[in-house]
Amino acid sequence: MSHFWSYWRRRHGGTVMEHRGGYSGGVGGGSSEDDDDEMVDIAGATLDLSSTDDVPPLSPGGYEEYSGNDRGDAMNGNGPSKLVDPLEDPLPGVGTYEDFNTIDWVREKRKDRDRHRRITNKSKQSTGALLVSISDAFSGWLLMLLVGLMSGTLAGGIDITTHWLTDLKDGVCLVGFWFNHEHCCWTSNETTFQERDQCPHWKSWAELITGTSEGSSAYVVNYLMYIFWALLFAFLAVTLVRAFAPYACGSGIPEIKTILSGFIIRGYLGKWTLIIKTITLVLAVSSGLTLGKEGPLVHVACCCANILCYLFTKYRKNEVKRREVLSAAAAVGVSVAFGAPIGGVLFSLEEVSYYFPLKTLWRSFFAALVAAFTLRAINPFGNSRMVLFYLEFHAPWHFVELGPFILLGIFGGLWGALFIKANIAWCRRRKSTRLGHYPVTEVLVVAALTALLAFPNSYTRMSASELISELFNDCSLLDSSQLCGYKQVHACPSNTSETSAGNSLADRAAGEGLQTALWQLALALIFKMLITIITFGIKVPSGLFIPSMAVGAIAGRLLGVGMEQLAYYNHDWFIFKGWCTPGAGCITPGLYAMVGAAGCLGGVTRMTVSLVVMMFELTGGLEYIVPLMAATMTSKWVADAFGREGIYEAHIRLNGYPFLEPKEGFEHSSLAVDVMRPRRSDPSLAVLTQKGMTLGEVEALVESTQYGGFPVVISKESQRLVGFVLRRDLLISIDNARQRQEGVVSASQVVFTKHGPSQAPDAVPHLRLRGIMDLSPFTVTDHTPMDITVDIFRKLGLRQCLVTHNGKLLGIITKKDILKHMAQIANRDPDSILFN
Amino acid sequence: MSHFWSYWRRRHGGTVMEHRGGYSGGVGGGSSEDDDDEMVDIAGATLDLSSTDDVPPLSPGGYEEYSGNDRGDAMNGNGPSKLVDPLEDPLPGVGTYEDFNTIDWVREKRKDRDRHRRITNKSKQSTGALLVSISDAFSGWLLMLLVGLMSGTLAGGIDITTHWLTDLKDGVCLVGFWFNHEHCCWTSNETTFQERDQCPHWKSWAELITGTSEGSSAYVVNYLMYIFWALLFAFLAVTLVRAFAPYACGSGIPEIKTILSGFIIRGYLGKWTLIIKTITLVLAVSSGLTLGKEGPLVHVACCCANILCYLFTKYRKNEVKRREVLSAAAAVGVSVAFGAPIGGVLFSLEEVSYYFPLKTLWRSFFAALVAAFTLRAINPFGNSRMVLFYLEFHAPWHFVELGPFILLGIFGGLWGALFIKANIAWCRRRKSTRLGHYPVTEVLVVAALTALLAFPNSYTRMSASELISELFNDCSLLDSSQLCGYKQVHACPSNTSETSAGNSLADRAAGEGLQTALWQLALALIFKMLITIITFGIKVPSGLFIPSMAVGAIAGRLLGVGMEQLAYYNHDWFIFKGWCTPGAGCITPGLYAMVGAAGCLGGVTRMTVSLVVMMFELTGGLEYIVPLMAATMTSKWVADAFGREGIYEAHIRLNGYPFLEPKEGFEHSSLAVDVMRPRRSDPSLAVLTQKGMTLGEVEALVESTQYGGFPVVISKESQRLVGFVLRRDLLISIDNARQRQEGVVSASQVVFTKHGPSQAPDAVPHLRLRGIMDLSPFTVTDHTPMDITVDIFRKLGLRQCLVTHNGKLLGIITKKDILKHMAQIANRDPDSILFN
Repeated sequence: MSHFWSYWRRRHGGTVMEHRGGYSGGVGGGSSEDDDDEMVDIAGATLDLSSTDDVPPLSPGGYEEYSGNDRGDAMNGNGPSKLVDPLEDPLPGVGTYEDFNTIDWVREKRKDRDRHRRITNKSKQSTGALLVSISDAFSGWLLMLLVGLMSGTLAGGIDITTHWLTDLKDGVCLVGFWFNHEHCCWTSNETTFQERDQCPHWKSWAELITGTSEGSSAYVVNYLMYIFWALLFAFLAVTLVRAFAPYACGSGIPEIKTILSGFIIRGYLGKWTLIIKTITLVLAVSSGLTLGKEGPLVHVACCCANILCYLFTKYRKNEVKRREVLSAAAAVGVSVAFGAPIGGVLFSLEEVSYYFPLKTLWRSFFAALVAAFTLRAINPFGNSRMVLFYLEFHAPWHFVELGPFILLGIFGGLWGALFIKANIAWCRRRKSTRLGHYPVTEVLVVAALTALLAFPNSYTRMSASELISELFNDCSLLDSSQLCGYKQVHACPSNTSETSAGNSLADRAAGEGLQTALWQLALALIFKMLITIITFGIKVPSGLFIPSMAVGAIAGRLLGVGMEQLAYYNHDWFIFKGWCTPGAGCITPGLYAMVGAAGCLGGVTRMTVSLVVMMFELTGGLEYIVPLMAATMTSKWVADAFGREGIYEAHIRLNGYPFLEPKEGFEHSSLAVDVMRPRRSDPSLAVLTQKGMTLGEVEALVESTQYGGFPVVISKESQRLVGFVLRRDLLISIDNARQRQEGVVSASQVVFTKHGPSQAPDAVPHLRLRGIMDLSPFTVTDHTPMDITVDIFRKLGLRQCLVTHNGKLLGIITKKDILKHMAQIANRDPDSILFN
Repeated sequence: MSHFWSYWRRRHGGTVMEHRGGYSGGVGGGSSEDDDDEMVDIAGATLDLSSTDDVPPLSPGGYEEYSGNDRGDAMNGNGPSKLVDPLEDPLPGVGTYEDFNTIDWVREKRKDRDRHRRITNKSKQSTGALLVSISDAFSGWLLMLLVGLMSGTLAGGIDITTHWLTDLKDGVCLVGFWFNHEHCCWTSNETTFQERDQCPHWKSWAELITGTSEGSSAYVVNYLMYIFWALLFAFLAVTLVRAFAPYACGSGIPEIKTILSGFIIRGYLGKWTLIIKTITLVLAVSSGLTLGKEGPLVHVACCCANILCYLFTKYRKNEVKRREVLSAAAAVGVSVAFGAPIGGVLFSLEEVSYYFPLKTLWRSFFAALVAAFTLRAINPFGNSRMVLFYLEFHAPWHFVELGPFILLGIFGGLWGALFIKANIAWCRRRKSTRLGHYPVTEVLVVAALTALLAFPNSYTRMSASELISELFNDCSLLDSSQLCGYKQVHACPSNTSETSAGNSLADRAAGEGLQTALWQLALALIFKMLITIITFGIKVPSGLFIPSMAVGAIAGRLLGVGMEQLAYYNHDWFIFKGWCTPGAGCITPGLYAMVGAAGCLGGVTRMTVSLVVMMFELTGGLEYIVPLMAATMTSKWVADAFGREGIYEAHIRLNGYPFLEPKEGFEHSSLAVDVMRPRRSDPSLAVLTQKGMTLGEVEALVESTQYGGFPVVISKESQRLVGFVLRRDLLISIDNARQRQEGVVSASQVVFTKHGPSQAPDAVPHLRLRGIMDLSPFTVTDHTPMDITVDIFRKLGLRQCLVTHNGKLLGIITKKDILKHMAQIANRDPDSILFN
């Protein structure tokens, strides 16, 4: 248990440095027995933040993994074997990363290119090798197929189970408790939608317990049962998360963005996270909490992809290749969440991914399609459609309506900005006060509050996706819902009494049913807006798409009905004249709801193209793109005026992850020399010389500093740069040499040159380390503007870059330095950047 | 006229170096009077390839443009003004590019960031400056709106005019010669489609000349008139291109790809090109040549964008910002060509663009939508649809059908590979033999051949887009076309005589009409396949989308009808069993045509996602994505097996443009030291020292070499790098100093340091040039693998990169060096890379 709490504090708090000792041995997995498991480890297994202070793990598993000689070329940093130091075998562990560290994209890409080159060259020699080469080329496609199938299946299962558990809060099916309400009534005779509630097999809890479904006692019983189930589901969810996979909480998208940008969080995409997130997602959604399953589905798809990567050496051993697959998996997640494969791919491209080559675009699209069709084959919504909300609008929209659409965009933008500020403030409070120590209590309180307030209002009692579906819906002739409670005026002008359903598609006056609905919707809007702020961030899987869309859809529907009534009663106003004749249906409130949903989602996430395309895929009508675009654009502009960060970036910053936002330009005019370490007043940079240092000196230098790596220079006087050695690689090599190479003592010379100095036969042997030195470190001059330097870091995915002046080594800039500098410019605490 | 011929030879031939003298004074514009016109100049105005041999143009216009002091910070290469040499004013012309040269992305981006920073800083000072800042921020959107409106309008005009001219080949409308066939008959009483030909106002040429529309003489008259009009249109098109805008020929996409990758081709996107390309595109398409208007529409949209850029300083003065707009314009072009805005954006992203930030994605989408809706408002197809081919399929497809779909993909891939090889061979032949000297004759011969062979076959006589539309079409009950000539068996089993239209949507036996149609289609297929090879590349605007799609659609329809008949006669075969019962319509030949079209287009262009999305936007049904995807994937794999280049890349290589393909990885294991200049045997690199060289020495060095730039070092002995000076900037500065600065003579010292050496008051004054020196040149070490170096060049958009070894300058790598090295590896002639 203690792991769990310290885990929370470490990950979410400023108290990281107190807990420096490495925690090993997690709840579900213990210390990993096989280093192959790298990112699949159970969370909490290796929660070591202070990487540079520890001796790197030299477990036998690590040795085994890298005992293959396929890294020879890669590690000497320069391809052809002529430069490999013959004494230097590639060492196990060299070239791997520690938890909570940034990967080196350039090195990983080089490793993959070397591997590919080796296979291509071999393929010309024999048929077997040719087959290996072909299977290697197609393994990516096979992997995509598997990811699509697995994610689609899981999403289908989640949909079906959620549906069942949600209905279980209302009642139970007597034919079999595992049937949901709709499924239960399929076999009965009353199959029309109106009589769905009267299906005899389905009993509400009140009917089952008190025997009657009417009256206040039945209402109270139903109310209590509703709260009971909600609390039960919420309790199960938070307990499972707490006990087995702390990483399973939240939406997961901020962390996935960080991982895709080149960060290592071991176990975040592991099997335990997958299992627990899948189960608790169902429970959390069913409990009626104001959260969606879309973000978590992206996380689930990424877990699937990460686990399936272990089937293919190409992806298992390379962090960059794996990230390509994860980018595709993010597309898959959205594809199964909304049935929008193209929107999913664009979401991955626009919102989540960092490195997205065109090859990945094509593969993501394939995977997203496979997943969408798998989901359709499972048919969880029972309507043979892939999409969550199927829409068909009949009336076109008019140019004048752009006004209200833009208003909805403004509303969405304002709400988005406000929500982000309020939610971040609340999450910061959770981290800094005692509130964060009681996640279970917090979840239970929120769940109780939600259930208590949600039950009396039918629009909050139903699940959010049902609500959105109903709000998006255009009232048809047969519609029995309260929202379509218009007065039936046109058909029989004498009969002005309201009916439950209008009988004409033309504009009509609002009846009493609609008026009640509007009041309920207004209350639901306030409720949803407030409860979402405290819900997003609690320790259960929680997505933000559906709650945001719900807020927007309610606001949109309200405005839409308002416009409709305005047009009905005032169709001679000049703005309605000419296109909105009496008796014609000129306003579609469902369209307003959709536009409102897009606006709010845009304000919260700052998505643009992907959001519009996703919504377009729901409706399928190209004409509705313009309203969607107007609202999304307005909402982004309005929200950006209050702060440029979307909710995911805000959470990334809150957690102190080292994420270099690829979208934002660096606007300040500082130079590399202003950002680099050491500062002017600091002692000069710790460097190694290519020869002349003893092992003892090197070890002393390494121990006295905390740097992640050391430049190698010709001599301290000339400061001419030769290469760069990573601390981790250096320590592993020294450790290995001391254990295995005879005669290596503290007085041994450490040599980085190609040909060591001539050596007397009886002297202590040299330790040759050219093999672990990167001979092509990136350098910029001290005069390089930081905007260019940041661009280089982003585009090439660097961890560090050396700074020179007139050919002399001057200092070093790391990703963390840049992020700290950016925080300083923005008047934020530079120490909020926790990781390297 | 001589300009034209030398132009062809220079641009398309290997004889470039013979024509070294700068040709100035083009046909349509003369030497440009205003340097503002940079890329809008009439083509041929400055066709100077040997840039490094000439004195840079120091026209007064050039001075005027850059006399604003907004380049101060940018040119000293390091942002803050503390490093600006006080003696050094930014010079006009410094920082611009010559024709047929590569731009420096880093420098351009830096310029834009500096500009933006200046405006943002100013905006805090006054309200006026704030307004300037806001209008600056929104100018991009305004520009996008204008590009969309202009391109949409032009595309609408082109569609309407093409339709009219195409019909003019058949006959003329007596009510008004400017009406096309359909429009002419709108007013008549016989409005059903079958009687369209009998409309009394519309007279075929035979009717008008001989008075009868029947009989062989009428046929001959129609035949001759058809050929006459075809030749007339073709002659007009090629003459206009030849006389006014040689750049207007071809599809334009290879050149636009090259321009977007950072190349300067003056006049390629200018106003003359726009005007002439628009007119000649209409003529070329109307002449019945086997070419499409989709590629040229992309070119037209890019011309619009480039011209509109001149309205906004932000875009006029910055090559990178302008390229963002051009990327969006490419999306606009496809959007108006196919009515597929999302597909257009993906096309731009996948196929055309080089630098495509997310901001551009969103703006492209906006522009593409505006253009699509503008086009819809113009309504050129008279059906209120935006799309070229509107499809609605009724039957779903079955899993078994994936077999034939993949077959179509294989066909498409084979044809694509074959077409590229044949077309490139033919184009090379045109360049190297006397054939290239007679472009007008060539066009006329091809047009005559096309008309002669196309007229007898109704499927080749109709325009290619009509043909595709008909092939895609699902046979409905009322369809009178020959392709739907099925036997009418199911309705009245006794009556087995064929009728012109079937009366059931179920599978039917092919009637005589269909059999004739199949023969004609087979002949049309062979004709189209052969004629496209010699057509693509003639000197009129010619797109490749429509001809490729036509080939694929014919093949697909043939296979589709074949499958249909197979299923009809053998519905008890095991592959048809279970899903294809007799009397049901289980095969949709139109779908096969669409899949075939996608396969062929994919084979030729190697597009993937964008192609599938484009086709998806035509049909709107998500279920048809899977067949499309299967065909596209197969076609790409098959075609790639024969050569990785698409048609556009092949043409780029044919023309020797310096294009660094962003999709392909660099697979070879060479190091930077293997590629850099000077080679081991060459004399050492020409460098400037930061002080100690006289002006005379510098001038002698510049004159004796042809390099585009010179590194500046501390001293020749140490070879420590200080900065980099571009040849063009150096020459302009020296020229300027000699003219304006008193006392600058050949004996003057050239000084690049911050503080010049102390100077006796009576000595000759120093020439300080720190202002033009780039203080942050990119460097890599000699051990850097070339794959990483290529990655750096691609991602950062470099022109050159310096190579160091242990802090000493060793050599230089330019983009051209890399391309030559790549050509060498691929066993091609490295001298085929013509430009820097």
